[in-house]
Amino acid sequence: MQRQDRLTKPRGSLGALEGLSIRIAGITAEPVPRLKHKAILTMAADHGVTAQGVSLYPAEVTRQMVLNFLAGGAAINVLSRMIGARVIIVDMGVRGGLPAIDGITCKMIDFGTKDMSTGPAMTREQAMDCLVAGTEIVEQEIKAGLDILGTGDMGIGNTTSASAITAVVTGQMVSEITGRGTGIDDAQLAHKIRIIEQSLTVNKPDPADAMDVLAKVGGFEIGGLAGAMLAAAANHIPVVIDGFISGAAALIAAGICPAARDYMIASHLSAEKGHAACLRHLGLEPLLNLNLRLGEGTGAALGIFLAESSVNLLREMSTFSEAGVSDIQ
Amino acid sequence: MQRQDRLTKPRGSLGALEGLSIRIAGITAEPVPRLKHKAILTMAADHGVTAQGVSLYPAEVTRQMVLNFLAGGAAINVLSRMIGARVIIVDMGVRGGLPAIDGITCKMIDFGTKDMSTGPAMTREQAMDCLVAGTEIVEQEIKAGLDILGTGDMGIGNTTSASAITAVVTGQMVSEITGRGTGIDDAQLAHKIRIIEQSLTVNKPDPADAMDVLAKVGGFEIGGLAGAMLAAAANHIPVVIDGFISGAAALIAAGICPAARDYMIASHLSAEKGHAACLRHLGLEPLLNLNLRLGEGTGAALGIFLAESSVNLLREMSTFSEAGVSDIQ
Repeated sequence: MQRQDRLTKPRGSLGALEGLSIRIAGITAEPVPRLKHKAILTMAADHGVTAQGVSLYPAEVTRQMVLNFLAGGAAINVLSRMIGARVIIVDMGVRGGLPAIDGITCKMIDFGTKDMSTGPAMTREQAMDCLVAGTEIVEQEIKAGLDILGTGDMGIGNTTSASAITAVVTGQMVSEITGRGTGIDDAQLAHKIRIIEQSLTVNKPDPADAMDVLAKVGGFEIGGLAGAMLAAAANHIPVVIDGFISGAAALIAAGICPAARDYMIASHLSAEKGHAACLRHLGLEPLLNLNLRLGEGTGAALGIFLAESSVNLLREMSTFSEAGVSDIQ
Repeated sequence: MQRQDRLTKPRGSLGALEGLSIRIAGITAEPVPRLKHKAILTMAADHGVTAQGVSLYPAEVTRQMVLNFLAGGAAINVLSRMIGARVIIVDMGVRGGLPAIDGITCKMIDFGTKDMSTGPAMTREQAMDCLVAGTEIVEQEIKAGLDILGTGDMGIGNTTSASAITAVVTGQMVSEITGRGTGIDDAQLAHKIRIIEQSLTVNKPDPADAMDVLAKVGGFEIGGLAGAMLAAAANHIPVVIDGFISGAAALIAAGICPAARDYMIASHLSAEKGHAACLRHLGLEPLLNLNLRLGEGTGAALGIFLAESSVNLLREMSTFSEAGVSDIQ
């Protein structure tokens, strides 16, 4: 923070980038951090609630998109190349299963969750397994070198689950925080809201017990991401939160351990309606507002670019005295 | 535009990045553009009005910061390295002169403008020379390879000039569009507003004649940037506008040739008060809102990153049929 004020620029003139670099210095406990090893963790899983017709796309798309990630043809691959980050693709429970090939880490809990509109999405044991899986991934990646982690998701139907989690945790009405996901119309949106309300009525998740919320209306990829966020925080690694699905995972992580919030950086405000409520509840200010609503970690990748920019400015800029520039008199 | 809708993502889910890629395709007249050669044009000049005590920093800082740019220790150097852009440093009229060394292009009009609070900042001939200089730089850079240009500035006192230009062109009151520049206090701000009002009373710039506005209350770097914007537009090169100073230059460029606006991309909304009025007048939506107010081209560098991201997404993402992903049924 003292260094920020000696750099060759008017104090405060780098705006949000100054605060961001100071936060990262705090998270990493390095006065002048370096973010060399960057990774996006994209977790995929299917959702039983898709049986209720809550999404525009068929559930097979989850599996197809994971193969697209592997081939390097998805948005997250392009943006990860832009920022020099590796993409960690994790199968947390994709329907139909995925081939055992290099490039996909298998942490499969089951072939998708159960339909939450008729009962719990998963057991409490499975919810715990999700957290353990996320933790294991992060600890393994730390061995490979990890200075900053971005979160991402793929799972047809997962805005339905994220909306349910957000409604329970923030206490807002389902209709206030449920959006159009991949792009459903008004009638489909009304149906999606009814399905989420029914899921909450059937399961009665306890807002004070994040594990209960995850088990009853969550998803395997959401639980995995929550575990990864907790592990990143425990290891002083800044974790850049993507959009709505990652935001719901962050609500679970912060519900389990409120201090985890201090290690989170909100990359962007999603166009998906409930995301603002997530960020408000977490007390996080988003860096970007580009109307993104793709997921995968795309917003997180852009956020990592800003994070790296902010610490590179802190490290590489000259101070007034180094550069022989007159400071305020 | 048709390609955008076939890429493996829900339509519209990349938000502002989709519109940005489509705009760049239009500007470059390339359906799938590539932004390989990137440059930030940082123009520096001094302002006679600093004699009236409108800035927190002494005028020598302009010259010192240009040498800091050359040494690679300024914020714009760090961010240009992040995005792989070259920085073109131009002396448009720095007080005290600069050494004739590699790395600074000399287009000096005079050793700073005259004090606009007592008469015109420059002659109409000098204003024309500024435009010619900006044009020459861009034409030279096109020979070296140029796919996208960011604009930037350095000039102690130049928010005073930019505020005057913005007041004249947009018709808003001086007090509504004058901000704190490098960080002046309330009393200094009131003084700055009085000096700008006096400059407008003394010079009576004609809002309908952009060259008159530039000559009477402009600056050499502002005129140079306006010329560069016109040259970029004429050559189908997208030009990424930085903050308030670049915004004032954009008002001059658009005043001379309204079609130039179609080639401009607004990188960010500056914390400097008058910038919002500039962008509103130009009809441009900023990509970022990070409370930056440094200038140099720092916001433009971040904007170029988003521009390159948007076209790389357009070019490198697979389509639904290529990736074997099911589209909406």
